[in-house]
Amino acid sequence: MSNSPPNPDLLSLNTATVREKWNLRQMIEGCARRGIRGISPWRDKLAELGAKEAAKLIRANGLTVTGLCRGGMFPAADRQGRRAAIEDNLRAIEDAATLEARCLVLVVGGMPPGSKDLAGAREQVRDGIGAVLDHARGCGVPLAIEPLHPMYAADRACVNTMAQANDLCDELVGSNGTGLGIAVDLYHVWWDPQLKAQIERAGDKRLLAFHICDWLVPTADLLLDRGMMGDGVIDIPMIRSWVEAAGYRGFHEVEIFSAGNWWRRDPDEVLATCKERHQSCC
Amino acid sequence: MSNSPPNPDLLSLNTATVREKWNLRQMIEGCARRGIRGISPWRDKLAELGAKEAAKLIRANGLTVTGLCRGGMFPAADRQGRRAAIEDNLRAIEDAATLEARCLVLVVGGMPPGSKDLAGAREQVRDGIGAVLDHARGCGVPLAIEPLHPMYAADRACVNTMAQANDLCDELVGSNGTGLGIAVDLYHVWWDPQLKAQIERAGDKRLLAFHICDWLVPTADLLLDRGMMGDGVIDIPMIRSWVEAAGYRGFHEVEIFSAGNWWRRDPDEVLATCKERHQSCC
Repeated sequence: MSNSPPNPDLLSLNTATVREKWNLRQMIEGCARRGIRGISPWRDKLAELGAKEAAKLIRANGLTVTGLCRGGMFPAADRQGRRAAIEDNLRAIEDAATLEARCLVLVVGGMPPGSKDLAGAREQVRDGIGAVLDHARGCGVPLAIEPLHPMYAADRACVNTMAQANDLCDELVGSNGTGLGIAVDLYHVWWDPQLKAQIERAGDKRLLAFHICDWLVPTADLLLDRGMMGDGVIDIPMIRSWVEAAGYRGFHEVEIFSAGNWWRRDPDEVLATCKERHQSCC
Repeated sequence: MSNSPPNPDLLSLNTATVREKWNLRQMIEGCARRGIRGISPWRDKLAELGAKEAAKLIRANGLTVTGLCRGGMFPAADRQGRRAAIEDNLRAIEDAATLEARCLVLVVGGMPPGSKDLAGAREQVRDGIGAVLDHARGCGVPLAIEPLHPMYAADRACVNTMAQANDLCDELVGSNGTGLGIAVDLYHVWWDPQLKAQIERAGDKRLLAFHICDWLVPTADLLLDRGMMGDGVIDIPMIRSWVEAAGYRGFHEVEIFSAGNWWRRDPDEVLATCKERHQSCC
């Protein structure tokens, strides 16, 4: 599978990739114009239009919502903060339902400011997901835990490997449960020696999203220097072959945070490059 | 164990911490003046004095060499490059023997430029260590594999977890073999959900070095923004209790790369802070 280019209809645009120059309406229309069939909005962009209006516009342009970014951020210093996080996730689930999103991506959160209790944060994440899971199921919105690169463990997400995400799924819904799965983002997991085995372990049922970009050498910034597919060191076709072997047939969602390069360019050119690289490098 | 301050005699200075303003002679004399009993030189600093002269000066000042930094960097694009890496490691082993270093730290290397073959790089690392192990044993120099943070997987070290380092030890020397172990650096491994279990698995025989510093939030630079113990989010006493529970009785080596802060200060003040923080935060 890794030797033939991917189905071009499976390309999806995560709106982070062009967030600096376009609003959500422009993104939707840009995708339609470029023949990109999927879109994954962030909530700040969604707020500009409102979920209902956005859903209407997305449907009118024939796009699939491959995910809503993002829920999560569960750990907090006190009960009130944890409650606020849960309420925010319930709202995100409802927006995802309105959009008929294939999943709500969970960036689970790190340690509350001042805390050094990483294990405690991980417990809060488990409890937070557990607290919103029923509502998500009721709304028909699968929750996708996104393991983030270990360089974000302190402040963004204390779930940092596929193994951890699989363990959380086991604990919360069992090995055959539904409604909870994983968003595999190459940028975060490409280095993991267990990656292939943990993708197999996740299997079709848990693989809810596949995010693509590349790891640049050197990387100038921890947050905002992701590369376009093909410009870095990740063997994307190989990892795509692993998720396909596990049964994944969903979209390939381009998510590039790039303050110094791609965010500065004409978004329409960025979309054209995404399409080209999806075929030549993925 | 985590509730009482560590033995102050176990503090060691990795020379990277004061590398910008002091030469090796100043570092050795600075440690002696401040009552720091261990030192771990980098080879660039060692080259200034030569290994024999450095060994004499270190002994004259009553210091223990807790490690030599560094060997490794095994993967290369061709046979000639791999051979050059092995020869460089053989020289490093001899210098470590001259210094009576407790170990030679291995930063194993990443992918050769242009390569996306992470698994292949990992095989080259295994083969490279295997090629120098006998010489290291003959010289009485234990080799300490240092798992580096996954953000360095591409270009510095493709061994990124304690589990991987333990697996390499199993493969190369078996579960009871000697001459090969692990350097545990908090900065690289603090985030790992398997850390406690893998420290237990390593045990006294494999735990050859314990490097301390802190993870800052935010971290401004991937390479040169490490924090002084106490200034970040790592629960150092907890992890120290884990290595002690596994039987480790060696030094606590401060290694701080900090272009924007500690490297700019008077090194004598930095050493004083290391001593104070070792007692108050470790």
